[in-house]
Amino acid sequence: MSQLEHRKADARLLILNPDGTPAKDRPVRIDQTSHQFLFGCGAFDTVAMMKTQDETKRAFLRDRMDKWLGLFNYGTLPFYWGRYEPEEGRTAYPETMAAAKWLREKGVQVKGHPLCWHTACAPWLMQYDNREILRRQLERIHRDVTAYKGVISLWDVINEVVIMPVFDKYDNAITRICREKGRIRLVREVFAAAKESDPDAVLLINDFNTSVSYEILLEGLLEAGVPISAIGIQSHQHQGYWGLETLNDVLARFSRFGLPIHFTENTLISGEIMPGHIVDLNDWQVDSWPSTPEGEERQAREISEMYSVLFAHPQVEAITTWDFNDGCWLKAPSGFVRQDNSEKPSYKALQELIHGKWETHETLKTDAEGFVSFRGFKGGYTLSADGRKAHFSLDTSLDTQLKPE
Amino acid sequence: MSQLEHRKADARLLILNPDGTPAKDRPVRIDQTSHQFLFGCGAFDTVAMMKTQDETKRAFLRDRMDKWLGLFNYGTLPFYWGRYEPEEGRTAYPETMAAAKWLREKGVQVKGHPLCWHTACAPWLMQYDNREILRRQLERIHRDVTAYKGVISLWDVINEVVIMPVFDKYDNAITRICREKGRIRLVREVFAAAKESDPDAVLLINDFNTSVSYEILLEGLLEAGVPISAIGIQSHQHQGYWGLETLNDVLARFSRFGLPIHFTENTLISGEIMPGHIVDLNDWQVDSWPSTPEGEERQAREISEMYSVLFAHPQVEAITTWDFNDGCWLKAPSGFVRQDNSEKPSYKALQELIHGKWETHETLKTDAEGFVSFRGFKGGYTLSADGRKAHFSLDTSLDTQLKPE
Repeated sequence: MSQLEHRKADARLLILNPDGTPAKDRPVRIDQTSHQFLFGCGAFDTVAMMKTQDETKRAFLRDRMDKWLGLFNYGTLPFYWGRYEPEEGRTAYPETMAAAKWLREKGVQVKGHPLCWHTACAPWLMQYDNREILRRQLERIHRDVTAYKGVISLWDVINEVVIMPVFDKYDNAITRICREKGRIRLVREVFAAAKESDPDAVLLINDFNTSVSYEILLEGLLEAGVPISAIGIQSHQHQGYWGLETLNDVLARFSRFGLPIHFTENTLISGEIMPGHIVDLNDWQVDSWPSTPEGEERQAREISEMYSVLFAHPQVEAITTWDFNDGCWLKAPSGFVRQDNSEKPSYKALQELIHGKWETHETLKTDAEGFVSFRGFKGGYTLSADGRKAHFSLDTSLDTQLKPE
Repeated sequence: MSQLEHRKADARLLILNPDGTPAKDRPVRIDQTSHQFLFGCGAFDTVAMMKTQDETKRAFLRDRMDKWLGLFNYGTLPFYWGRYEPEEGRTAYPETMAAAKWLREKGVQVKGHPLCWHTACAPWLMQYDNREILRRQLERIHRDVTAYKGVISLWDVINEVVIMPVFDKYDNAITRICREKGRIRLVREVFAAAKESDPDAVLLINDFNTSVSYEILLEGLLEAGVPISAIGIQSHQHQGYWGLETLNDVLARFSRFGLPIHFTENTLISGEIMPGHIVDLNDWQVDSWPSTPEGEERQAREISEMYSVLFAHPQVEAITTWDFNDGCWLKAPSGFVRQDNSEKPSYKALQELIHGKWETHETLKTDAEGFVSFRGFKGGYTLSADGRKAHFSLDTSLDTQLKPE
């Protein structure tokens, strides 16, 4: 497991008795309770859960989110402008903030997605001229990043810039300003607005385009000084699993910028594969898209392989699967649970990695001076000794003393 | 012909008699002798003509170049590093400079192609480390741009940057440094070297990739302040004529930068079309590629249409057809003349545009104060009156006096 050494750190702990003396030759139990790595998933249902007044629905969603929490420590919440603010000034702040806080209380990091995008944009913006659209776009970023500061600390600042100015499916306010200003100037302005509002936030650019176009765009943006914290890569694989060759090629090409890489929107399905001739996945409209037993086994295998490759890559810091349950985007069988919340093989497969193979649990013994040493996966830990407990974080090499209580 | 108004200018000329008095009510003849627009073609054979000691070959090439001069006012000469300097320090300067001067004496503008490219690069560069390769690349640009200053005033500074760092057909020195530095930094340095060496030269970037990748690259380069004088677009159409839709799409997408556009390497063939599945045109290796009568008629029609669209576009300032004669690159039937120098229908078709439809020749009469006014295509003119002649340039609106001698 040497390719995972970058995910681990060494700890040397001096364990103290309640009276402050070293606890010599004592058995201690080390249990990892959280991951430094961001294992993420769409968490849109938490917003629905906060909003609904239907108890049955709430209980169903709560059951779903409990399963969600059994896997993940990182959730994506929706900030599509047209849905977040369907009428100018009337936002989904209450339920979105409630959802974000609920997730944070469960130890989950939250990302807002996205602050600027041509799709699902607010139609009412189109009444304004380009100068005013841009002013309102920047104002929106200032407003929302400021409002959620301390709760949401990761943002997909801008989404799908490669096609943004040439997007021609329908007229929209953001394509208009991107066409006029150019990609680089627009990205620079929206990132500047986000950075001003929360200098410590992790700011992502995100794209489904993994071609040389995105590479060249990133190069141009970095040369232009845009403060990109991490490169977001979508990997919706409705048309079939990329496989190792494509995955490694994408990693090789996007790691050369030296920035962290986030897989932001991963999809692997457990049903029939969408035909390869479809260019825009949204063009594939079906009445139903069933999950099949063979498909579920395949999905579990593909998820295990893909997550293993990404977790082993030193620059990857996050993997987010887009849909937690089947039947969401494009009605695809893309979840870890079915529509009735029953767990699919992929749920168990990922659980065995995240909370099995990649988690550290050990029983150790302090030495004659009260020390224990171990090497474990980075994250949060509980140490138990003589029925008492202490908590610590193993983020880098750690040399400290603990007094369990 | 209103879409060609930008190619024309107004002249108001006061014609003087030998004694300086106005030549009133006199017939005058206006003949355009050259174009402001750059109608170009590969002129590699002038280098061969300068180099050969074989009189028969020289006469054959001279005949070819006479036909060439019957169409064009702009020639591309080869500066492929590996051929220009096959051994370090031993360059093709004598024959290349002789060719450039010969062309300039015939009123032809000359472009050097290219100063930096991964293909046809000097193999001896690979003995050096990347730092030294870059130093020598910049030194080469300084040396050659300085040496030809005043003779060659247009340069393809860098060629095919979109694929440059990911080019994987064979190892070469330029891909190495582009991969290490990134596209934008390399382009910035080679342009800076060219600009320092000849601040007045027209400096082009050139690519066969007309996708969104090239657009994004250009945007990044312009944001980074690279002094690109004109955008070079290759249009080798061995796999069939682009047609109006593609041509207009390319023009729309690349004109938004507000820079002049040069079609730098145009090919339309008069034989069978190369199959569409070939990705790198160089992979199509044939023993012979015949020109056919139907193909020659088609080529003539396509050339007429394409040149008409480009001449009508206000930002296009140059069109260069790559091969003057058949059987050059890829052995394609891509010329205006056959291998025996006989003129093809495309030769006559283009002649009828450049030296027919798009050239101004008029017989006028001075008014009672000795003035003639006309509107004509931009370029050089001869005015004849009473057996005497004067020369003038119509580049913008002109209001001057002339004394034919």
